[in-house]
Amino acid sequence: MNIHDLIRELREPAATKIVLLVADGLGGLPLEPSGKTELETARTPHLDALAREGTCGLSIPVLPGITPGSGPGHLGLFGYDPLQYRIGRGILEALGIQFAVGPKDVAVRGNFCTVDAAGRISDRRAGRPTTERCVALCRKLQQVRIPGLEVFVEPVREHRFVVVFRGDGLGDAVNDTDPQLVGHAPLPAQGADAESQKTAQAVNEFAAQAGRLLADEAPTNMVTLRGFARYPKIATFQEVYGLKAAAVAVYPMYKGLARLVGMEVVEAGASLDDQVTTLERLWQQYDFFFLHYKYTDSTGEDGNFPAKVEMIERFDSIIPRVRALNPDVVIVTGDHSTPSKLKSHSWHPVPTLLWAPTCRPDAVTEFGEASCLRGGLGQFQAMYLMPLAMAHAKRLGKYGA
Amino acid sequence: MNIHDLIRELREPAATKIVLLVADGLGGLPLEPSGKTELETARTPHLDALAREGTCGLSIPVLPGITPGSGPGHLGLFGYDPLQYRIGRGILEALGIQFAVGPKDVAVRGNFCTVDAAGRISDRRAGRPTTERCVALCRKLQQVRIPGLEVFVEPVREHRFVVVFRGDGLGDAVNDTDPQLVGHAPLPAQGADAESQKTAQAVNEFAAQAGRLLADEAPTNMVTLRGFARYPKIATFQEVYGLKAAAVAVYPMYKGLARLVGMEVVEAGASLDDQVTTLERLWQQYDFFFLHYKYTDSTGEDGNFPAKVEMIERFDSIIPRVRALNPDVVIVTGDHSTPSKLKSHSWHPVPTLLWAPTCRPDAVTEFGEASCLRGGLGQFQAMYLMPLAMAHAKRLGKYGA
Repeated sequence: MNIHDLIRELREPAATKIVLLVADGLGGLPLEPSGKTELETARTPHLDALAREGTCGLSIPVLPGITPGSGPGHLGLFGYDPLQYRIGRGILEALGIQFAVGPKDVAVRGNFCTVDAAGRISDRRAGRPTTERCVALCRKLQQVRIPGLEVFVEPVREHRFVVVFRGDGLGDAVNDTDPQLVGHAPLPAQGADAESQKTAQAVNEFAAQAGRLLADEAPTNMVTLRGFARYPKIATFQEVYGLKAAAVAVYPMYKGLARLVGMEVVEAGASLDDQVTTLERLWQQYDFFFLHYKYTDSTGEDGNFPAKVEMIERFDSIIPRVRALNPDVVIVTGDHSTPSKLKSHSWHPVPTLLWAPTCRPDAVTEFGEASCLRGGLGQFQAMYLMPLAMAHAKRLGKYGA
Repeated sequence: MNIHDLIRELREPAATKIVLLVADGLGGLPLEPSGKTELETARTPHLDALAREGTCGLSIPVLPGITPGSGPGHLGLFGYDPLQYRIGRGILEALGIQFAVGPKDVAVRGNFCTVDAAGRISDRRAGRPTTERCVALCRKLQQVRIPGLEVFVEPVREHRFVVVFRGDGLGDAVNDTDPQLVGHAPLPAQGADAESQKTAQAVNEFAAQAGRLLADEAPTNMVTLRGFARYPKIATFQEVYGLKAAAVAVYPMYKGLARLVGMEVVEAGASLDDQVTTLERLWQQYDFFFLHYKYTDSTGEDGNFPAKVEMIERFDSIIPRVRALNPDVVIVTGDHSTPSKLKSHSWHPVPTLLWAPTCRPDAVTEFGEASCLRGGLGQFQAMYLMPLAMAHAKRLGKYGA
């Protein structure tokens, strides 16, 4: 039995509120073998208090050893099995620029490239144009017309953009047109089934028109497309959990992921303080709040250990304002680890705490990777966090008599 | 691959004996944030000794966050995936009064209700008749005759009773006839498929005859039926594990659940001491003993923390007599947690110990929720307890060469 079906069956209304605080890329590694992680180094009195009163553990975003991107990382936290629900690259790119993708859309990532007189790619990134130039070139590509479909072309940055094909019955089993090698022409698109052939036909028409529109724009005189993805069919948060959910995020990608599961994306401001103010302002209007904090991940990606420590301390400082709202359940976690030492996402389990009056105490008195190993949540798949939150929020009835 | 298929393939005969001691609702919560649970408060020298010598852990009855009823809780302990094997309410009610349901049966819970002259329900519980009256009314309903079927009507208590329809090819996809509202007549039964239509026809005939038999019995002058359930198809303990199993239980529900998986329900007496005496008496005749102890759950449900502590201490006191029998494997666990603080079943993992000479030692020196977190069994789904028991009993061969 599917866990979402089980939750739909067991869920009960309650006037309780759940706050999910996601510090992106929270988990880390020590720089030296016997050292401390970023989280262990940071001074986090408020998180430590939550850890002491609540239950801690380590969440495994997908499976042991699997490093997730932001998409699977967040789907897991939202209680959607990231192996069952796959969000294709094109859709993620579109979400990342806050393009309102919908159920009739196939989205794909585009790259400007340079082709020689014979049509062979000589630079797969067209010498990395400026983002301003990317915007201007996309405006030009917006002249492409394909009968029976709507086509949207939106800049991302430098050589990257997004194309969305909108129409009935478009499949996404279409090969990348990027040959991933210089010296070869872009590949023609082919569909693996009837619906995808319809998409492939549109893609080839798009490439032909793009070639003509960009003919005089060398080095950005051609495009390649990769990662065709249809908008996923996904039950909403409201349908699964019966929760009215607000996403309090600053970055488009996370707003997009939240919108994908049917959360309402609210105007959140630009700073962490703004986000908490948003939480306070909308407290009465929602049952569930997802607050996304980006800078624990970006400092980790930069390999800047002290900056990540500082961002964690900043994150810690908002906890008193969150607790002052009297939430019934507070979760603090990350969508994955981003150790500064690795300068990238990693597969390491993510320190996680769940605070509620119904928590069984454990031995954890500080919020950190090593201490969470002794926590009452143990090591668990991130997708089970939402059922736990629902249980502690008294929103799940008994299974079976 | 199904775990039962794997066990059937690997199991080997052995002259070893396994004892499964189930303290119902064993897991608890402290009353105060930094306090101890019921089990941690109780003085349990014999359980602590078992914990010290054996391996401990915390079992998750169904999935994280899911609170099980007694049915799913016990199925998990018996090694049956509680999400795969679902026992319907009607069957559980019948098991609960020790009615010997069988493979041709559809069972359903009945309620006496009051209807007005127009046939509309004015009291869904008929003013809660005494159990004596329930017995008398059921005797009257036993006069119902339905051609081609056997019909059994058995009292439960107050307004509640059980009806069992026995015959070939009866389905259970039948709607409840209880409209769950006063001011409406009981609903006619309808079957969702051919087999269930056969049941629905019998149900409507039953209701019509019941209405005539009860016409002069106001306020108990009508019945509603809810929770139609067919006897589940379930492989027996003997078939799966090759174990001759005895159930030493006092309460009908647990006897019924044990009978469902093919255990022999033996005459156990009324007290915990009687149950242990039964174990001693039958020691040579079975391979596996399931001993069920109710009072850790009922005191938890009552919210009586000190009484639950006392019941745990009483449970501890039988351990020396069990050990004197020289069992090969002893398991002590619960089917779920019932914290006095919540006065109900809960989703919290259940302290569990497995004792056998082949246990790998862990750091646990006392049997309790917090200490079990450091145990060698870790946190695990309850359905894996039986494979572990079989392994320690030297009843499972190697998988693959």
